[in-house]
Amino acid sequence: MVSAESRETERETCFVVRVVRTLLRGAGQVMFQNSAWTGLLFLCGIGWGAWRAGRLEMAVGALVGLCVGTLAACMLGAPREEIEDGLHGYNGILVGCALPVFLDGGPVCWGMVMAGAFFSTVIMMAVSQLFRSWKVSAMTGPFVFTTWFILLASYSFSGVRAAALPHPVLPAPQPDMLTFSGLDMFFHASLTGVSQVFLIDDAVAGGFFLAGLAAGSLSAAVYGWTGSLVAMSTALLLGANGADVHAGLYQFSAVLTAIGIGTTFYHPGWRAALYTLLATVFTVVAQGALNAALAPLGIPTLTFPFVIAAWLFLLPHVDLEPESRTDSKTSV
Amino acid sequence: MVSAESRETERETCFVVRVVRTLLRGAGQVMFQNSAWTGLLFLCGIGWGAWRAGRLEMAVGALVGLCVGTLAACMLGAPREEIEDGLHGYNGILVGCALPVFLDGGPVCWGMVMAGAFFSTVIMMAVSQLFRSWKVSAMTGPFVFTTWFILLASYSFSGVRAAALPHPVLPAPQPDMLTFSGLDMFFHASLTGVSQVFLIDDAVAGGFFLAGLAAGSLSAAVYGWTGSLVAMSTALLLGANGADVHAGLYQFSAVLTAIGIGTTFYHPGWRAALYTLLATVFTVVAQGALNAALAPLGIPTLTFPFVIAAWLFLLPHVDLEPESRTDSKTSV
Amino acid sequence: MVSAESRETERETCFVVRVVRTLLRGAGQVMFQNSAWTGLLFLCGIGWGAWRAGRLEMAVGALVGLCVGTLAACMLGAPREEIEDGLHGYNGILVGCALPVFLDGGPVCWGMVMAGAFFSTVIMMAVSQLFRSWKVSAMTGPFVFTTWFILLASYSFSGVRAAALPHPVLPAPQPDMLTFSGLDMFFHASLTGVSQVFLIDDAVAGGFFLAGLAAGSLSAAVYGWTGSLVAMSTALLLGANGADVHAGLYQFSAVLTAIGIGTTFYHPGWRAALYTLLATVFTVVAQGALNAALAPLGIPTLTFPFVIAAWLFLLPHVDLEPESRTDSKTSV
Repeated sequence: MVSAESRETERETCFVVRVVRTLLRGAGQVMFQNSAWTGLLFLCGIGWGAWRAGRLEMAVGALVGLCVGTLAACMLGAPREEIEDGLHGYNGILVGCALPVFLDGGPVCWGMVMAGAFFSTVIMMAVSQLFRSWKVSAMTGPFVFTTWFILLASYSFSGVRAAALPHPVLPAPQPDMLTFSGLDMFFHASLTGVSQVFLIDDAVAGGFFLAGLAAGSLSAAVYGWTGSLVAMSTALLLGANGADVHAGLYQFSAVLTAIGIGTTFYHPGWRAALYTLLATVFTVVAQGALNAALAPLGIPTLTFPFVIAAWLFLLPHVDLEPESRTDSKTSV
Repeated sequence: MVSAESRETERETCFVVRVVRTLLRGAGQVMFQNSAWTGLLFLCGIGWGAWRAGRLEMAVGALVGLCVGTLAACMLGAPREEIEDGLHGYNGILVGCALPVFLDGGPVCWGMVMAGAFFSTVIMMAVSQLFRSWKVSAMTGPFVFTTWFILLASYSFSGVRAAALPHPVLPAPQPDMLTFSGLDMFFHASLTGVSQVFLIDDAVAGGFFLAGLAAGSLSAAVYGWTGSLVAMSTALLLGANGADVHAGLYQFSAVLTAIGIGTTFYHPGWRAALYTLLATVFTVVAQGALNAALAPLGIPTLTFPFVIAAWLFLLPHVDLEPESRTDSKTSV
Repeated sequence: MVSAESRETERETCFVVRVVRTLLRGAGQVMFQNSAWTGLLFLCGIGWGAWRAGRLEMAVGALVGLCVGTLAACMLGAPREEIEDGLHGYNGILVGCALPVFLDGGPVCWGMVMAGAFFSTVIMMAVSQLFRSWKVSAMTGPFVFTTWFILLASYSFSGVRAAALPHPVLPAPQPDMLTFSGLDMFFHASLTGVSQVFLIDDAVAGGFFLAGLAAGSLSAAVYGWTGSLVAMSTALLLGANGADVHAGLYQFSAVLTAIGIGTTFYHPGWRAALYTLLATVFTVVAQGALNAALAPLGIPTLTFPFVIAAWLFLLPHVDLEPESRTDSKTSV
């Protein structure tokens, strides 16, 4: 939360600085950090990951989505403070990361990135309106719904060509767990779990994202990494596919749950930590459930396990204050 | 909206006239027109389409659904003004059009038409209650949910026999677009796009419906036809199946989106027109997405792409007034 | 509803008695009875059914789920009166009944029973918060969502082994109805329809549950049994699979609908009875629909047909009072 006074000071700076800061904050808000430095490090991580994977279109998509999503909010008259806090950029940047991963890179794909980033802002405003009276935020729901719509539509339109969508199949029981062992794999998977928030499978990019988190809030970085470790352990204990855990696919939603519930919507504390632990375990179960539920449709879960977990665990508005303070801190 | 005074005058007319007017308005409200003349022309269009297709049961179903839906509202104590405006007839008439198309015409089918029209009014009252605090209306959601329930049930009950349901399949990428060219095909598809709102594939019936729209509001007719053209162009550009576009299957939801957002819930104006254009394009993408999402269940999308688009684009309550007038016009 | 005075008296009794009474009421609330005697008879029925089926783990699961669900509510600070009325036990007991039926009985299964009962209380508090302003209760929704999540997750985790889940298939039309005749089969199916509320296929257990209902409210027992008979007749008339009707699978949700709408949320009366009849018929159609809709996912409907019916038929808040009394009785 930015105080009214510092917000006043901010507005006196020149236009370009304000625009850049708003966009960087939009990147940072993907992991709940209202901080331009966080956003800058996140963009570095995306750039690194895209370069290493030889897919620079992901980085371009991220920038395009970030700009279009924020611009859409200005055009649609969203509250100025929300825009300045980057709350209308984080869904757009995720749409821009995701679509080039799953679609081929033709001009229709880029049209979809722009349209999708715009729609994600409309859906953001719709979901915010829906949830206003419950004081629960939209999370990354707008990104998930928008991307699902466009990926599903790729089955109906021959001009929207999928490049890497899972093949639609009926759910089938998982065979025995693949081998997964060694401390180095453990360490690697804890970082890819963070990087997959931006659909990147790269441990170094995960390090960038943790550094960005730390720039915004040290406890967010600690919660994020711990969430990844807890999710990995839970998934392996339950017998998840080892290759998926190695690629971070059971961790990225849990990372968001851990940061969101543990540090953003509740003050950190041991009761909040326990509640966050339960929500993180729930997120892993929900990840497994949604993998099966979406298998017949041939689309990925994206961060929907986190969205479900956050909505369900935040709606009860459980009082977890150590000394039952009354100042609630529900930014984002 | 009918003024209190003219409503008083209305109530002095004889009972039969009042009943007929209420029913005709119920038909007109399918496309947001609170006008008996619109409803009369709509019924003519349905009759024509049913006769040309050799399926008069559709016309009978429409009348039965219209009557049962409106009667149910009276029995359940819905507000009198809502009933007189036809707001409890439009879901019933659509249920009555749809079920004879997809089910065989046996006595159980007719029982389902009556039960379905009744349920659609219950669901109408439930969804209206749900959405009351957001000032968004139920749209054709009650028709969609009721019809989906009954069509899905036909898989479980051997007494409810499906006649023309799509075969359940996992989604598969669309092959290259079928040929679609020529100005006459373009013209034809723009009219079937309108007639498919009532599940009729007939250009002349589409002409009746446009005439009915014009009887209620000229701008509604313009927006409706334009919406059909925009949807057709978008679908062809994205590479939709040409035969589906020719039959109007990518246009009918977009027609409702264009009329609803462009003329009913917003005053027409260039900003509203632009927003409507975006919502119309979104409806076409949603149509493609829902085609894929419902393929495994073997049920049609009905007008759900419109319902989704209308809810998402109306919930933000974006201010699109040319001179920011404050009198909101949210009928239906 | 317990008056404030008698609640005061209750609190003076010793701790153990209070705990046992709370837990028994939690069992009774599965069928809307705030009565420890009902709960005791329900537990006897579960014990009998589990013993007859040679699956005592169901009874153990029920007790574990009941305790964990209630304990979770205490830990999360749910309102004390809700807890004392057993409103945080009925979802947990159902989770505890269901999971051992569908999963193998290993230690992970029991971990899931405990985690699931805990999650069901979180979801109960979340859904209650969601529906607060509409004065509609969560019904058995939290049980359904929790169990669905865990059963779906069994497809992704090799450590969570399914024992008796339906095989995922695309929906296919039901072949002709299997033979079902004779008054004894009719009688048997009317009782298994009641026992299946707790996922038990045993007519004697159904008798226990009816006795428990009668201990709480005679009209609840009458409505429950009648609901089972109406649902059975509707299902047979529509051509449902005879073996499923014999096992009570088309009746259990309708039993809950009949008790809930007929006696709990409305005062009994002939108008309420008629409305309940319609809701019961709707529940059977919804059961058939959801059987088809969930077939590709390979999970059972559980009591979701009831949840849908109850939400849709209670949301309109139709006034069904014989003399339009104003004291509404919306417990549970």
